[in-house]
Amino acid sequence: MTSPGPLSGTLVLDLTRVLAGPYCTMVLADLGARVIKVESPSGDDARAIGPFVGDRSAYFASLNRGKQSIALDLKDTADRAIFERLLERADVLVENFRPGVMDRLGFGWDALHERFPKLVMASTSGFGQTGPYATRPAYDVVVQAMGGVMSLTGHPGSPPTRVGTSMGDITAGLFTAIGIQAALVDRFRTGAGSRVDVGLLDCQVAILENAIARYSATGEVPGPIGARHPSITPFDAFATRDGYIVIAAGNDGLFATLCEVLDEPELIADPDYSSNALRTEHAQALKQRIEARLASGDCADWLDALGRAGIPCGPLNDVAQVLSDPHVNARNMVVDAPDGQGSRMRMAGNPIKLSSYADPTTREAAPDLDADRSQILAEFED
Amino acid sequence: MTSPGPLSGTLVLDLTRVLAGPYCTMVLADLGARVIKVESPSGDDARAIGPFVGDRSAYFASLNRGKQSIALDLKDTADRAIFERLLERADVLVENFRPGVMDRLGFGWDALHERFPKLVMASTSGFGQTGPYATRPAYDVVVQAMGGVMSLTGHPGSPPTRVGTSMGDITAGLFTAIGIQAALVDRFRTGAGSRVDVGLLDCQVAILENAIARYSATGEVPGPIGARHPSITPFDAFATRDGYIVIAAGNDGLFATLCEVLDEPELIADPDYSSNALRTEHAQALKQRIEARLASGDCADWLDALGRAGIPCGPLNDVAQVLSDPHVNARNMVVDAPDGQGSRMRMAGNPIKLSSYADPTTREAAPDLDADRSQILAEFED
Repeated sequence: MTSPGPLSGTLVLDLTRVLAGPYCTMVLADLGARVIKVESPSGDDARAIGPFVGDRSAYFASLNRGKQSIALDLKDTADRAIFERLLERADVLVENFRPGVMDRLGFGWDALHERFPKLVMASTSGFGQTGPYATRPAYDVVVQAMGGVMSLTGHPGSPPTRVGTSMGDITAGLFTAIGIQAALVDRFRTGAGSRVDVGLLDCQVAILENAIARYSATGEVPGPIGARHPSITPFDAFATRDGYIVIAAGNDGLFATLCEVLDEPELIADPDYSSNALRTEHAQALKQRIEARLASGDCADWLDALGRAGIPCGPLNDVAQVLSDPHVNARNMVVDAPDGQGSRMRMAGNPIKLSSYADPTTREAAPDLDADRSQILAEFED
Repeated sequence: MTSPGPLSGTLVLDLTRVLAGPYCTMVLADLGARVIKVESPSGDDARAIGPFVGDRSAYFASLNRGKQSIALDLKDTADRAIFERLLERADVLVENFRPGVMDRLGFGWDALHERFPKLVMASTSGFGQTGPYATRPAYDVVVQAMGGVMSLTGHPGSPPTRVGTSMGDITAGLFTAIGIQAALVDRFRTGAGSRVDVGLLDCQVAILENAIARYSATGEVPGPIGARHPSITPFDAFATRDGYIVIAAGNDGLFATLCEVLDEPELIADPDYSSNALRTEHAQALKQRIEARLASGDCADWLDALGRAGIPCGPLNDVAQVLSDPHVNARNMVVDAPDGQGSRMRMAGNPIKLSSYADPTTREAAPDLDADRSQILAEFED
């Protein structure tokens, strides 16, 4: 189902639903792994989440391209036997049930590790397998809120602002993929599989970046600051005559060049702006000075002038502009797959480009529920 | 310098500066890899970025814990010879120079692959190694803007809003770590290293998630929608009497339970709210109904009642609250390391928990510039 890649030959059994787990296994499939979705008889919940094209979820289709599907009731004796035959040949099992569910099904880590010692098992859950909140339910917005990212995102005084893409799930999916591959590397040397336990909330803490250092160093609790950087200035969105652009002039040399492009030489000499630390202290006043000058021209003109001077800058693209951007397309970051209804749909490509493997421009369609049952049963016969 | 982990025995040479690259190699170090920072004689730029504790950057310290440092001038003949001795034993080289710099230094992929065929080389740059923007400079806010995430983040009509943590860099760091490990897995079978090329902008496209599907399916360009989810409702931040909480009641059953906890049984029967699609269509009206009820109690009371009913919910924590949260601490997500000045500083832990290795509660300090030169030279003698 997938193109050759560095993970070709790796068989991943995927019990996951909705987003964090399916995103992880999509990344593994894009790297060549074979992913068999083992769905409940009612199927991955994401099949019922919009937007829909005809009767099919485009959301599900984009996350599950190139995977295979078999529906198994893990409480049914015959289906359990099929699942166990799959486990005998699997390299990786990924699941995102609430902690305890796999144990109650008889497929907890200890039992699996004893029977299938080479198997890597990855569990992605809201709060991880341990700790006081382990059995609580979580969705993306819950961990974005509890993990502090929402406290840093938005404008001062604005209502709470969620990151507009499900970073809570996606970050956990990426860390799970890293954990699985680390366990595979380890297995090449030790021969033994291991258990990977990733919690969405933990991953939000892991991406707080400089916020922890700022709080620890200063004792001040960081808050939302719009579009600017907390400790690099100018590094923000700025209004021009016809819209916003972003400029990131992160050091003294770039700041001097920016002042030249803006034809504001007195800014360079102003003692308030003579270092990055001082520019950050006076970020609001500096922004007003810069925007007063930018108001004389349009986005396109300023981006052209700034770009020619080597200043990091760019437009604020909406999704339509992203998908039609010539560089994004030159990098093969928009691929397509059959939508299962006679047409094709576009989706994000693989951002990991490898010298040793091609970067395909298409994907196989996402599977209908249980679509690959007969082929899988024939292949994994006793 | 690092604790044992699945990547123990893996030697990573790290030419990267500031954030995306150092974040990637931090993740690898947390998994047991040995990371030698090969810095220019002036050192990683992040050493000059605040916040500072005494004369040292806490920002640099948190990203470079547990790494070693040697300063090499890659244009100097003697230093180049040292670098080549390191390359002979390295498994991975990571760099985030502008495309072309490594070639001009004589350390481009073709030259390195010929001399060191087992070496994995990963390059992380703003726009990747190919395409029309390849040589443009980029910082986090530039790719957050150009990649569309900013177009989805914020409130309708608000000025541009950057995600309050450097997701542009961090996401690229995570995809680079995934690419490196995939190349290591591949090398176990083929014996050959490969080149990994990751661009920050590509990674922003890769995390647009359902936004591409929504645009492709409907033709409507998605915009910012505050804290709610575009296609799941209720899934948002809601005001109570004394502040905000988040609630994610993503299916009919959870919505019915939510109505019971709110003591609003007529909401369940209201035909406007009888399916997730209808609830999403009437999200604003439903939010007003929910908030009218939540106004009668405080955050803590509602979180208690909602939590007992099994509804995914949580507080909006600031960074101080995150660091003192009992679950975050039980999961060992706040570790510490010497700050190099006689005290210790706190930083985020490793969100990948593995059955086969301990999860250490401390880290070694980040190195001073060139701190490990003599030890490294002695170890890597001809």
